[in-house]
Amino acid sequence: MDIFVLFSGGKDSSLSAILLEPFFDVTLVTCNFGFSDTWKFARDVASELGFPHKVLRIDGVVLETACDLAVGDGYPNHAINHIHLCALQSAAGTMPATVASAGVRAFIADGTRRDDRVPMLELPDAQRLEDTYKCVYVRPLLGYGRRAVNLLVETHLEIAEDESEKIEKSDYEAELRAIIEERHGFGMVDEIFPRHVQSRVVRRKDRNMPANG
Amino acid sequence: MDIFVLFSGGKDSSLSAILLEPFFDVTLVTCNFGFSDTWKFARDVASELGFPHKVLRIDGVVLETACDLAVGDGYPNHAINHIHLCALQSAAGTMPATVASAGVRAFIADGTRRDDRVPMLELPDAQRLEDTYKCVYVRPLLGYGRRAVNLLVETHLEIAEDESEKIEKSDYEAELRAIIEERHGFGMVDEIFPRHVQSRVVRRKDRNMPANG
Repeated sequence: MDIFVLFSGGKDSSLSAILLEPFFDVTLVTCNFGFSDTWKFARDVASELGFPHKVLRIDGVVLETACDLAVGDGYPNHAINHIHLCALQSAAGTMPATVASAGVRAFIADGTRRDDRVPMLELPDAQRLEDTYKCVYVRPLLGYGRRAVNLLVETHLEIAEDESEKIEKSDYEAELRAIIEERHGFGMVDEIFPRHVQSRVVRRKDRNMPANG
Repeated sequence: MDIFVLFSGGKDSSLSAILLEPFFDVTLVTCNFGFSDTWKFARDVASELGFPHKVLRIDGVVLETACDLAVGDGYPNHAINHIHLCALQSAAGTMPATVASAGVRAFIADGTRRDDRVPMLELPDAQRLEDTYKCVYVRPLLGYGRRAVNLLVETHLEIAEDESEKIEKSDYEAELRAIIEERHGFGMVDEIFPRHVQSRVVRRKDRNMPANG
């Protein structure tokens, strides 16, 4: 069964893909609004992990709306959630249909974890997504807390850490930062996004395990 | 890393074990209160699946309390949740410590799914369990909805279905039914537990995949 995993190049979406790998044919999918080429980093990590990779182009109006939300709120949570839901809908609606059984058109997945607050779909929104798009939406890390994720990451991935703006990433924040900087200047970016240590995936440690890529 | 999966012999806990198998050394654990030998069915399914199996003896007072809760409520939900939390605490506290890193004593898991209502720990209860027992609590199916679980079960397991009371099972309901029948008669059992189609695992289909057992 094919599954399309929303992929930022970060450790959570990488680990999600690794957990799905023995049971599905995994393709990594990175969203891009055509505003800046932030997807390139994810493509490189996908290649390092050994998975096929696609770029999913999403209507720029989603990013515009997210920009307005973030600037209006003064913090990024609603904006990130808005992008994430649109990304899931877009993936569910456009990825090639490969599963015929049980009225399911496609399998999609992401890297959201049990203890995450953003991005995160509430249960009724997850069920609505599945019903509307005849898809199956899987969150392999939803049953894993922070410590479990850290231990699995340590086993399977080599990680580098640095402050947010120094780390090259392909997550939603990357293009959102870019559009806010263009429209409102870097001061606004710095006001909206808390500075915190971010991580990026350097390579996979578990090369003895099978890879689909 | 060792992980102990609470195991009823049913399809959800079986599938949980299968999802964990490529990443952990899985041992299946069936709870028993010493009231009736309901664990024997789970032992046979565990052997069929190819996993090592343990019986976890839990204080009979937990079953007594659950019996009172079910009879008092007229439905089994609180009773089942009470048993489940005690079972998790008992597993977290008594399974052999095997993980030294990150202050974690043991990994435990169960088969609760995204759309389940009972048994189900709320997020703060799951976090409290982990903090209190220095354990990692993993729910591999929490990010999987009904359709996803059905499709994976179909791929990996052969299942037989019948009405609740005709199916031999090792879940909490089995011993709870037994004690309620002894104390209050079968009429009370029939009143408390809704009749519905239950399933049991017959065998594993994916014999080409690696098994730890």
